[in-house]
Formats: sequence, structure tokens, C-alpha cells
Amino acid sequence: MLKTGWQHRLLGATLALLLSIGSAVAETPAAKTDGDKTPVEQKISNFLLDNGMEVVVIPDRRAPIVTHMVWYKVGSADEPPGKSGIAHFFEHLMFKGTKAHKAGEYGAKIAEIGGSENAFTSDDFTAYFQTVPPEALEAMMEYEADRMRGLVLTDQVIGPERDVVLEERRSRIETNPEALLAEEIDATLYQNHPYGVPVIGWMHELEKLNRTDAVAFYDRYYAPNNAVLVVAGDVDATEVRALAEKTYGKVPRGPDLPPRIRPVEPEQNTARTVTLTDPRVTVPSFSRSWLVPSYNTAEPGEAEALDLLAEILGGGIRSRIYQSLVVKSGVASSAGAYFDGSKLDDSSFTVYGAPRGTAKLDEVQAAIAAEIAAIVKDGVTEKELESARNRFLRSMVFARDNQGSMANLYGAALATGSTVQDVEEWPERIKKVTTADIQKVAAKYLSGNHSVTGLLLPSEPVQN
Amino acid sequence: MLKTGWQHRLLGATLALLLSIGSAVAETPAAKTDGDKTPVEQKISNFLLDNGMEVVVIPDRRAPIVTHMVWYKVGSADEPPGKSGIAHFFEHLMFKGTKAHKAGEYGAKIAEIGGSENAFTSDDFTAYFQTVPPEALEAMMEYEADRMRGLVLTDQVIGPERDVVLEERRSRIETNPEALLAEEIDATLYQNHPYGVPVIGWMHELEKLNRTDAVAFYDRYYAPNNAVLVVAGDVDATEVRALAEKTYGKVPRGPDLPPRIRPVEPEQNTARTVTLTDPRVTVPSFSRSWLVPSYNTAEPGEAEALDLLAEILGGGIRSRIYQSLVVKSGVASSAGAYFDGSKLDDSSFTVYGAPRGTAKLDEVQAAIAAEIAAIVKDGVTEKELESARNRFLRSMVFARDNQGSMANLYGAALATGSTVQDVEEWPERIKKVTTADIQKVAAKYLSGNHSVTGLLLPSEPVQN
Repeated sequence: MLKTGWQHRLLGATLALLLSIGSAVAETPAAKTDGDKTPVEQKISNFLLDNGMEVVVIPDRRAPIVTHMVWYKVGSADEPPGKSGIAHFFEHLMFKGTKAHKAGEYGAKIAEIGGSENAFTSDDFTAYFQTVPPEALEAMMEYEADRMRGLVLTDQVIGPERDVVLEERRSRIETNPEALLAEEIDATLYQNHPYGVPVIGWMHELEKLNRTDAVAFYDRYYAPNNAVLVVAGDVDATEVRALAEKTYGKVPRGPDLPPRIRPVEPEQNTARTVTLTDPRVTVPSFSRSWLVPSYNTAEPGEAEALDLLAEILGGGIRSRIYQSLVVKSGVASSAGAYFDGSKLDDSSFTVYGAPRGTAKLDEVQAAIAAEIAAIVKDGVTEKELESARNRFLRSMVFARDNQGSMANLYGAALATGSTVQDVEEWPERIKKVTTADIQKVAAKYLSGNHSVTGLLLPSEPVQN
Repeated sequence: MLKTGWQHRLLGATLALLLSIGSAVAETPAAKTDGDKTPVEQKISNFLLDNGMEVVVIPDRRAPIVTHMVWYKVGSADEPPGKSGIAHFFEHLMFKGTKAHKAGEYGAKIAEIGGSENAFTSDDFTAYFQTVPPEALEAMMEYEADRMRGLVLTDQVIGPERDVVLEERRSRIETNPEALLAEEIDATLYQNHPYGVPVIGWMHELEKLNRTDAVAFYDRYYAPNNAVLVVAGDVDATEVRALAEKTYGKVPRGPDLPPRIRPVEPEQNTARTVTLTDPRVTVPSFSRSWLVPSYNTAEPGEAEALDLLAEILGGGIRSRIYQSLVVKSGVASSAGAYFDGSKLDDSSFTVYGAPRGTAKLDEVQAAIAAEIAAIVKDGVTEKELESARNRFLRSMVFARDNQGSMANLYGAALATGSTVQDVEEWPERIKKVTTADIQKVAAKYLSGNHSVTGLLLPSEPVQN
């Protein structure tokens, strides 16, 4: 039923990834407007309830449907040392019974009215959402407000659900060399910051999570003043405010939380390589990551430049890497680049590739390094920038056209230190990025000997 | 005046390192007895004061001198996340003034009577010691008991001393490629455990340490029930007990501390390489480390077997690595192996080497890997084991012959989870290790693809 933390980490409900997903589709006839106009003029409302709960309302009258999301400003990077996985485990526990409603009742209600629900956990946030007809919004709010403080957390609930999460880790990570490698790459890239800890948690720590841990986590983080309610759809702000006050408004404010200040990375001076050799691997592949700022930590304009750099360098089939390695020389079967800017703290910029046919992994690595070096040396062209910028802006149009995307976009932004205004002004900031800005961030962040290279290799001494 | 944490980490006041330092010297005529008898039959006393302070008394009547040490069971691995360096910084602050004695008075007193003093911080403990004539023991105890709770920690004290520590880091780490590489190797080897954090602290965190951090650390960890008093020398247990009750006995018990349970390493599945390229490096070198148990975490007999494996593989000029690479083939100018078993938590086993003349670093790595593979495949000989065991046992005799070594040995052991009995029985446990045990730990811990290799390389594309 639930997406796992690590899946979410890959799939992303965050700004940059949503937009890049958008950009892949925005080329279709669905996007009929140009980058300067949004298809629906949405007036977004943003206010606080008395108990500190933030509310965002995104009207969308095109269909009788609403997306109801609650975002908690807590993710795996907020976990106490030694308790990895508690944020994601707690996401599971939220589907258990409360004092008022037994386990399964909420889900059954949603299914009955033809709605859908899901939840996900990332390093920085945990979110719960339902898509339902507007007349069911109040019921969703009642249930969601009820489980914000009303969960019954007994050992009888905790034990079996921990087994479920352990099995989830076993089936999705332990049996998957790529996932195991990804964990150790993160653990190597982040020498100090908790982004080095996997969202799903390490097996040996998951096994020990108990009722005391769960209750402490719930009491600390699950409260209206640590949550953002996002409602998108066939509703208006006045209605939502009234319903929110009637439901969430009854939940008392929780303890004041200190600022989310996590340990920061020290200066990194080394180039690191993390190699996983496994008989289940048939084709070798590599990734190379650098520590870079996120939208929340970057100097003004740098995160926007990194987003456009990722797009130009390896963001899709029009990118330099794809054109050079996959289309022209044919040394790679896949290759690209991505930047995950929607993080509370410093994030990463990654390039990746796998050889095709008899090509060697080294050739793919060298060809990608050459593409980066070319941008560091000569920059990108105005034409490339314009094209990438237009794809981004169209993707924003596309995102605006999708109720779920819009709710995700605002929820993720508000849970990672951005404001509604930041999201609204993002297209303008993207327009201001120059070719010089892109060359500058490439030189600043992607050169020097401090990257982490991941190598996934077959066990047999094969050609690569 | 003070040794730094990282220096200590290299020099070691711990069991295994002390013994290996001992073993290098034990071949001299000074060690006249065989491995079965100690030169002095020392009756060691071990008791608790009412306030929980543990006391160890090691009588040594050969000279009118005493070694007085206080070991606090707190080191850098006990620091809160984001506060790296506070343990070592606090060691500095302990030399500042108290309510009763102004800064410098204690040191002046020691100098006046011809004594000496020092202090050191490791991952697991912080220790303060003085060597003085027996009649000064009571004064040492008074001063040491006074600064256990009586420090004056104002901003005027904290600020300038933080500058001293920052300068210490700058001069000893930041300007030293080997030290920088060592830090990032540790940060890579330990994916979860705080041994990945440098003892001296990371610059960006050191800069922010303040009075609040110092006071919190002092109030939590500096108390008699978190300390071990070790007195070695021309004294007896009755005298020491009386003096200790008169001085330390007046210090009230501090808060009960929870067990020292730190985050544990997850299963490691990858081979990692950490490379530092620097123009100041003239000769390339490498190290390779594996995570292995310590005396405190190992299955019975495994740590003893790892100690003997390190000795046989690369513990000195008689070791396989030294004989093969330095003496016979001459590919290496230096090469060896070491195991640091005196840790509270899982520790590391390391091999290292540097090429000589026109030899390549790769050849050195390959030759050392071959020596390990040979032990994994064929084990060690009875003769090698006997020789290594005798060197170890003689080193224990040598350690017993040195007042400071004995005090260090018991202090470090008691601060890392061992008992007086463990130290006393150690020679017997070493005698029980078989060649099969050594082959088994080599196969269990030094094979598989989960080591961390550190490469220190010159900037220029030289022959290596």
C-alpha cells in the first residue's frame, strides 16, 4: 500500500524532480501555452490556524475532485542517532488504529467513496494524502486530525508492523545490489550529515525500534504546529479554512521544536570510490556525485543554475551527455545527470552511465567527464540555455495543470524551507539564469577531487 | 603543553599499541625474565569510593615517584552530533582556573617540585596525569578533585582557548595531507559509528563550540562516578584510599549516565577508496582498513588472535610484510600492519605501505594483498606464532616494568570496558591462541570486498 522511503527518494515528490518529470512530458500537445502564461490563473491561499498549522489552498475547479495532503516537517534526517528508519516506520504506524477509529476504517472509507490514498517519507518530510470527491474532504480532515494525536501505540501494534518494515527492507534493499550500493554511496558522500543514513533505516537499527522510540517520535513531531495542510481542487479557501478549524483546529499545539539544524558537512578533500561487486549484476554501471547546495542553502541563483546545468548536461534526450554518449558515439546504453535541489540542507549533483555492447565502463566515465570539463572550460550556448529554460518553464505549466503535482510541489517546498512566494517566483528566477551562471556553478561544484564514484560491477571478470 | 587527540590516536595509550611499542624494545637485555614471570610481583588493588569513583593502585617501590592519573569515561565518540571536538576542547579547558585556584597555579606547583604533567583525549576516554614525588600525591589529588567540578567557565575563558584549539587544528591537520586523508578514511570506514568523526573535531564545528556546550559537557561527564583514578608507584593501597577519600571523596556523585551505547555500523557491502592528491606529497603511499571487533566487542579469543595476526603479518621487522616487501623484494620503503583492539566499540585492522625507488604503489598493494591471501589460505606456522606470542608476552613484562605504562594500561582498559582481571589474564588468553584461530580471523575479517583503501598521491602525474 505504501511507497517506501527509498522509493520516494528515487521517485521524488520534490520540486526539481517533479519538474523534470514534467519536462519529459511537456513536449506533448497537452502543453498548449508558452512558458510565460499559466493555463489556469490559480490564486493560492496560505494561512495559519491558531494552533500553528500552516494551510495552503490551491483552487482547481476543472473537476469534482480534491487532493488532501498533510506534510509533517520531519524526515529521516531528523531521527536520533541509532534510530534510523523510525520516520518511515512511523509512517506505517499512522495506518494503525486510533482511540476513535480502529485500524483499516479510514482506508475502507476512502475505498468506499472511490478515492485513493498514499503516504511517503523522505529525508526531510513525511506526507499523507488522499484524492477524493469534495464532499468527502471534511471526513478526510477528521480522520487525519484524529490520527495526528490519537494513535494507539501498543506493543501489539508495533511488533508486527516492524516485521512488515523489516521485510520491506529485505525485499527491496537487501536483495537489490543497486539499492545497497546507493546506501553506501550516500554514507560515503555525507561524512557528517544525516542524509548519509538511509530513509528506510539500517537493518540492525530497524530491528531494535520499539514502542518507546515510536511514542517519543510521535509526541515530538506529530503536532499541528509541525504540519502543513495542502488542499488542491474544487474548493475555495474560505470553505477549507472553516473545515480545517472545525477538524485540525481542535488538535492542541505541540511542543515548540528547535530549528531543524543538522550536523553540517566538513570540507571534503578526497575523491572517493565505492564499489559493489555482485553476481546478480550483468551490466556494469557507475554514478558520480558531488555535494552541492540545495534551494534552501544555495547563494541566490545557484540552485536555479544547477537545475539548468543538470538539464543541459544530462537532463533528457536533448542533453549533451545523452546526445554524445547514447546517440552519437553509442558507447553508453544510458547516461545522464540530475540535481535534487529540494532539500532542506546541502544536496547532491549526480552523473551516471552504463556501457553498451563491447564498450567499457571506463570509456563511459571518461566521456562524461569530458562533457563536464567542456562546460567548465567553455560554458554552454545561449541556444542550449534557452531551450532548457523553455523546457523547465513548460514543465511548470504542466505541473500547474495537474492537481496532484501542484499539491506536491507546494507541500515539498514548504516542508523544506521554501515559501509559497518562492514557488511562485521560481519561473522568474529561472529566467534570470545566464550562461555565465551555469559555467560558474559547474566550475565551482563539479571540478576538484572531492566527488564520490559508485561502481556496480558483475562478479565475474568480464569485459568491463 | 598538551598532546592533541589525533596525536594520541596515533601514539596510543591503549593496550595493544602500548604492547607493540613494548615489543619493539623488549628484545633488549632489559627484559631478563621469560614470558611466564613478571619482574615485580605487583599486587594491584581495585576499589570504589562511596561517590562511585573507581580506584586502581599499582604499587611500585623501586623509585620514589608516583604516577597519578584520572581517566574520564568520555571521549570524542560520546559527543553530541554537530559538536565534534568538544571532548578534546574540554581537555584544554581543564587547564584553566577554578574557583579555588587560578589558571596556571596547578602547573606551576608541579613544575616547582620537579614533576611533569600531561593529558590526552581519544575516541573513548580523556585522561589527565602527573608524575611527582610521593609526598606531592595528596596535593595532586586535591588539585585534580578541585577541577573535576570547580572550573570557572566564562566566555572570557572559552573564547581564547577555542582559538588555541582552532590553531592546533590548522597547524596539525589542515596543513597536513596525511592527517586530512586519515580523517576522511575514518569518515568513510565508519558509516554510522562516531569513530568516523575526528577526535580533534571538524573545523566548522569547532568554530561554533561555546560556553553552553562546554558547561553541558562538563556537567554530564566530569563527575567521580564517571572517572577512574589510577595511582602507580611508591605508595600502598591503604594510603591511596585514605588520600582519595579525603580529596576525591568530597566531590558529590554526578548524574547517573546511561550505558555508552553508540550507533553501530550497518553491514558493509562495498570496497571503498579514498584518494587525496596534494602537491606537498612527494612519495605515494596507501593504507587499507577493515572493520574488526575490539577486545570489548569480540567473540572470546578473536581480539587476541587479531593482535597476533597483526604482529605476524606486519608488526615489526620480523613480520611477513616487512621481510617480504622491505627486506627481500625491496619494493617498499615501509610497510606493516596494526590492530587497535583497545576500543569500546568495533575497531579497525590496517595494512599500509609506500614504494621504494622506481617501484610502483600498485606493486606494494599487490604484494601486501598476497601476504594476506597466503595467511587466509594456508595460515601461519607454529614457529611464527610462538615467536610472536613470546614477543607479546615479553612486551607485557616490559610494560609491567614501567610505572607509566602500567598506569596507562589499566586506565585505558578500565575506560574501554575491560576489568583489572581482563588485563591480568591477557597473557594467558594470548597463550591460548592457535594457528587455526589466526587463520580464522584473517579469513573472517580481511577477505571480502568491504575494505577502505586510502591513497595519498602527489599532484604531478609521477611514476606512481
